[in-house]
Amino acid sequence: MAEEYHEALHTRLINIRRDLHEHPELSFQEFETTKKIRRWLAEENITVIDVPGLETGVVAEIKGREEGPVIALRADIDALPIQEQTGLPFASIHEGKMHACGHDFHTASIIGTAILLNRRKDEFKGTVRFIFQPAEEIAAGARKVIEAGVLDGVSAIFGMHNKPDLPVGTIGLKEGALMASVDRFEITVKGKGGHAGIPNNSVDPIAAAGQIVSGLQSVVSRNISSLQNAVVSITRIQGGSSWNVIPDQVEMEGTVRTFQKEARSAVPEHMKRVAEGIAAGFGARAEFRWFPYLPSVQNDGRFLTAAAEAASRLGYQTVRAEQSPGGEDFALYQEKIPGFFVWMGTSGTEEWHHPAFTLDEAALKTAARYFAELAVISLEMVE
Amino acid sequence: MAEEYHEALHTRLINIRRDLHEHPELSFQEFETTKKIRRWLAEENITVIDVPGLETGVVAEIKGREEGPVIALRADIDALPIQEQTGLPFASIHEGKMHACGHDFHTASIIGTAILLNRRKDEFKGTVRFIFQPAEEIAAGARKVIEAGVLDGVSAIFGMHNKPDLPVGTIGLKEGALMASVDRFEITVKGKGGHAGIPNNSVDPIAAAGQIVSGLQSVVSRNISSLQNAVVSITRIQGGSSWNVIPDQVEMEGTVRTFQKEARSAVPEHMKRVAEGIAAGFGARAEFRWFPYLPSVQNDGRFLTAAAEAASRLGYQTVRAEQSPGGEDFALYQEKIPGFFVWMGTSGTEEWHHPAFTLDEAALKTAARYFAELAVISLEMVE
Amino acid sequence: MAEEYHEALHTRLINIRRDLHEHPELSFQEFETTKKIRRWLAEENITVIDVPGLETGVVAEIKGREEGPVIALRADIDALPIQEQTGLPFASIHEGKMHACGHDFHTASIIGTAILLNRRKDEFKGTVRFIFQPAEEIAAGARKVIEAGVLDGVSAIFGMHNKPDLPVGTIGLKEGALMASVDRFEITVKGKGGHAGIPNNSVDPIAAAGQIVSGLQSVVSRNISSLQNAVVSITRIQGGSSWNVIPDQVEMEGTVRTFQKEARSAVPEHMKRVAEGIAAGFGARAEFRWFPYLPSVQNDGRFLTAAAEAASRLGYQTVRAEQSPGGEDFALYQEKIPGFFVWMGTSGTEEWHHPAFTLDEAALKTAARYFAELAVISLEMVE
Amino acid sequence: MAEEYHEALHTRLINIRRDLHEHPELSFQEFETTKKIRRWLAEENITVIDVPGLETGVVAEIKGREEGPVIALRADIDALPIQEQTGLPFASIHEGKMHACGHDFHTASIIGTAILLNRRKDEFKGTVRFIFQPAEEIAAGARKVIEAGVLDGVSAIFGMHNKPDLPVGTIGLKEGALMASVDRFEITVKGKGGHAGIPNNSVDPIAAAGQIVSGLQSVVSRNISSLQNAVVSITRIQGGSSWNVIPDQVEMEGTVRTFQKEARSAVPEHMKRVAEGIAAGFGARAEFRWFPYLPSVQNDGRFLTAAAEAASRLGYQTVRAEQSPGGEDFALYQEKIPGFFVWMGTSGTEEWHHPAFTLDEAALKTAARYFAELAVISLEMVE
Repeated sequence: MAEEYHEALHTRLINIRRDLHEHPELSFQEFETTKKIRRWLAEENITVIDVPGLETGVVAEIKGREEGPVIALRADIDALPIQEQTGLPFASIHEGKMHACGHDFHTASIIGTAILLNRRKDEFKGTVRFIFQPAEEIAAGARKVIEAGVLDGVSAIFGMHNKPDLPVGTIGLKEGALMASVDRFEITVKGKGGHAGIPNNSVDPIAAAGQIVSGLQSVVSRNISSLQNAVVSITRIQGGSSWNVIPDQVEMEGTVRTFQKEARSAVPEHMKRVAEGIAAGFGARAEFRWFPYLPSVQNDGRFLTAAAEAASRLGYQTVRAEQSPGGEDFALYQEKIPGFFVWMGTSGTEEWHHPAFTLDEAALKTAARYFAELAVISLEMVE
Repeated sequence: MAEEYHEALHTRLINIRRDLHEHPELSFQEFETTKKIRRWLAEENITVIDVPGLETGVVAEIKGREEGPVIALRADIDALPIQEQTGLPFASIHEGKMHACGHDFHTASIIGTAILLNRRKDEFKGTVRFIFQPAEEIAAGARKVIEAGVLDGVSAIFGMHNKPDLPVGTIGLKEGALMASVDRFEITVKGKGGHAGIPNNSVDPIAAAGQIVSGLQSVVSRNISSLQNAVVSITRIQGGSSWNVIPDQVEMEGTVRTFQKEARSAVPEHMKRVAEGIAAGFGARAEFRWFPYLPSVQNDGRFLTAAAEAASRLGYQTVRAEQSPGGEDFALYQEKIPGFFVWMGTSGTEEWHHPAFTLDEAALKTAARYFAELAVISLEMVE
Repeated sequence: MAEEYHEALHTRLINIRRDLHEHPELSFQEFETTKKIRRWLAEENITVIDVPGLETGVVAEIKGREEGPVIALRADIDALPIQEQTGLPFASIHEGKMHACGHDFHTASIIGTAILLNRRKDEFKGTVRFIFQPAEEIAAGARKVIEAGVLDGVSAIFGMHNKPDLPVGTIGLKEGALMASVDRFEITVKGKGGHAGIPNNSVDPIAAAGQIVSGLQSVVSRNISSLQNAVVSITRIQGGSSWNVIPDQVEMEGTVRTFQKEARSAVPEHMKRVAEGIAAGFGARAEFRWFPYLPSVQNDGRFLTAAAEAASRLGYQTVRAEQSPGGEDFALYQEKIPGFFVWMGTSGTEEWHHPAFTLDEAALKTAARYFAELAVISLEMVE
Repeated sequence: MAEEYHEALHTRLINIRRDLHEHPELSFQEFETTKKIRRWLAEENITVIDVPGLETGVVAEIKGREEGPVIALRADIDALPIQEQTGLPFASIHEGKMHACGHDFHTASIIGTAILLNRRKDEFKGTVRFIFQPAEEIAAGARKVIEAGVLDGVSAIFGMHNKPDLPVGTIGLKEGALMASVDRFEITVKGKGGHAGIPNNSVDPIAAAGQIVSGLQSVVSRNISSLQNAVVSITRIQGGSSWNVIPDQVEMEGTVRTFQKEARSAVPEHMKRVAEGIAAGFGARAEFRWFPYLPSVQNDGRFLTAAAEAASRLGYQTVRAEQSPGGEDFALYQEKIPGFFVWMGTSGTEEWHHPAFTLDEAALKTAARYFAELAVISLEMVE
């Protein structure tokens, strides 16, 4: 396709992205966003599929020259409850809401990919399904999409996150773990309250909790292989409300991040043992509660070459992707089917979730073309 | 004096005590109580002294047969914010207020002592000053009494607390420490908040605070002589408000009780060192704040024999007083002048501050006579 | 008895004490000491009783004017493995052995008491038994004396320890706890050794032991009443022998001192719970072993007045005795029968067990007379 | 070259390897080994270079068809102080010494590579230097080789370690960190010894050390990025020698392993701060001493493709190499010049350093050919 065509498309994608950016909507409230995506796709004669159960978000499909496998490309569409401070002419007009994580970019890019693939139908066998997923920021959208059956029949799924610290035209690739698992825990240390001057009549839950905090440091330092990675952060501790009464209990809460399945399953076991053992040592009792949220993004190594090849064909650079301690509900798709998630360089100026987060719109074209290429290549790899 | 006289006095003291019990007033709100005490003393022609600065509380004096030293007898008069559950016919008619610590008993008894001494003026040289002190429960009344100059010229001061677990007619005596010092502390552990998945970019104040809690246990276990007594209780810990953000700081609060001056001054020094050192070990910073409240009740050993002699003359039992980890603002008088504080047996059924706290009114007579005797004896000892 | 007599006796006691001091013998090796004591008593026609089972130590008896109860006076006779550095003319001639705890003084004084009581037989009914006990320093002699039946028929026992910081003529008296219980403990933390770079394949006993050390601080700080006293000291910790292998286990050892029976029985229970709980928290196992040595010296309050009266009759001062965190196997007698142990002022210059330990020999007369008086008084109190 | 030739070479390498295996020599005692290697190379007319300063170990060189860059291939030659338990016919005849880490295999393979390259001289420009390094097991040989100037003029260096869990014919490749840095630390906690019953007169170094052990767990858990890897193992703790004396100090020792330079430099800084801060919190003093041993093996990413290409040409498999928490003094070469270290599959039955460690000798041929190929390829990449 001619350069001229790509420039026109680029202009279009910039407009789409700015429209999204100016009108950010929070997780599961992406009603206007959903309408617009449907309209933009319809304008291109791309088939939008109605999915019962999905109130927001869009699923579309492009079929190739003949029957074949189905792959999916996923973009997330929701914004964050952050007050934008970019000063851009198309800055958010919705008070306290902002596309501060670049999902506007993901959405516009994948619309671009759809437009491109719609023109290249004869180049591939099978189907490309487009998933414009709601509610990634609250780690709830992918679950809903899966429950709605959108992955049915899909052989592989691809996605991206913009990466401010990579330049436009550079793509970060890595097999295996890319983003961390994200889970939550709560610990209640139950002692027995009483007169602060007569501690021997109480079981002091604060003394026990203090040692549990220390003991939990050893889960990472002693129980997880040095070849794996895990973080255990206690982020909240609360016990007592006066200066002269030993309280009945202390509450703790926090999060665990890991990059390996073994680490993810080992950490809560060790934490439970530490909390319960130390509490028992103090004559107290610890309740450990585990709330699994997201597994880690685990890229299927079989697609590493395809992902590199797509970049190579377009003259893009690839680098080995750095892992991120953040989470991504793309990981839930990867629990069901093989998938590959990449870092898309955007020459950004700020970290994700920063009120002055920006990116270089030149990346729209790069990303749109990259995923079109990757779709074509990967459709030949799967069954 | 005849038995008959004492019985009549006893009846009167019961009435006084029940009147007080039925109309409890909280600290510094003892306006009606003050009026009644003044009236009851005036009815006996006992001189009430107007003390500028004391809005509640009463000071009275009885002079002996000739000039001599001045000693003081102190009763506290305030009640507690507790809803009475005794079911007594003279239970509190003031919602949510109760004489649950027996200050009604202290007040009535010392009024009785005044009445008795008023009849025995010719038995002693010098002056007995009666201090009906407000606001003991909030550890503020003694300070106000001292500031008003009520201790000026006083050589020694005596007081009591009812003791439910001693029978009526038994008095607990002990030189040296009787009740604990009571102080408050706050510790703020200042770290640097951040992403819970990237702890290396933060200084985790919860991890530091956990070890500080453990480290503070060693203040009592390692830094205080086994021959002394101290309690360090952290009663409140609070840090963080979410499950995925390391907070900036953790707040702790608690109390220290000691029975010796050395311990009282040593504990905060050691606590400060522990908190600051451990915090520094974590790259954090600890602020230790110390709020001195009350010293320990330290009985002057010179009055031990007098206190025993007074009991002996009246045929009362004495036992070695057990120490209490509670505090008493009588201790503030003892910082200024020698003093002696005793446990007065009241055959009570519940602990202090219990909503069903009661005592045997037979103790009114015992206590009134005891302090009259002690006053006479001690006036001969002081200068 | 005339002053002159007492002076002569004093001279004699000084000679006895210097002879003992010059020839110190270690615990259970007091063969020459034993011979001398027997000879000195025999010279006074005081009946020495042969006690099968006691190879060292002497038991003697003086019967009063008629049958009556038996009380015992105890002196300990052994020396310490310390090289004397006093420079005294009668310093130890036995290399590396020294009466550095004043047992020479105790022995000579009680010989003096025997001589005095032998002259005062007609003043008392009953019997005074003298126990010159071996091996106090290793806490083994009293046990042997008891096993030999020496306490049989004895109603009460009295003893003393010299007190360098009290002046000659002053006696320290206190009912209840005077000297600490002394017990020993061992803790083995069993983990699983392995490669220091692969801690997840090991159970690190050093990490567990570190927290157990911290946790044990809370036994005193949280589990023992602020009105009681306890010390838990871990004095030895040992684990591992290389820099790159996680060891299998860590050994800890130490001592516990308490002044109350409740504290003595509570401490090991709490220690065991702490050690086992925390070890379990780390996936390790703790073995807690308790070796009871000596209970605390607990003076029977009934003899407090007698002990004061004896001093008073002789014009000596009494002070309230300070407790000592050291142990004394006199406590074992007090487990069997009532007893009273006093501090005898000796105007010493150094602490017990110091190589330059000395005392003022004027105390020999004081002590000899005091126990004679106390024996006479107490024989009237017991049955 | 014909298959027949390779088979003959294989037989020769098996003989060489068995000779080495039967006669293991410890680090810096590889005198016979050195003689043999020189002889085997001389037999092939390969130039051995005399390197002043190297008493053991051999350096040899093969020059290609014309001048060009120099690359080095390194094999380590020393054995371990382990008693062999393989039961092999060529098992060690040297009591207590064994090639239990397969350096016999490395040496024989690289001799094979030299023989192969000697025949292929016309295929490359430049020089291949062969380093048969002594004393790898004690991390001292590479340092000596470097000091002797053996790396002078060398553009890149390649090496391997046999990997029992990879099959023969499979090679593990990874850019970046492959093996851990290995460093040693010592911590002395200096308190003040004293009577175990009077802890307030001491500064208890065991109490401080206990918390330092706990605090050091947070170095890995809080101060190192979850994307990096570090191990801090305290492997020895020692303090005190009795049950009733608080000791003056506690000694600790251990090792740190990391896979990233940032982690390697950050860990000791954090450890020092933790140890010093917590010690100060206890009124004690911590001395932290750091003994750097080995950096991590860091493979230059530029050679990843070459390393894969060499395998590909020979029909070998490659897998992404797993990292090892062990150390390798090959890392010291990589501090000076670019290098690449690979896992050579040997279908072994036991872990390194196991007394029954074995490998499949088929790997000799694989390895010899692989490094010949890699040398030819990489000489074209460097300058």
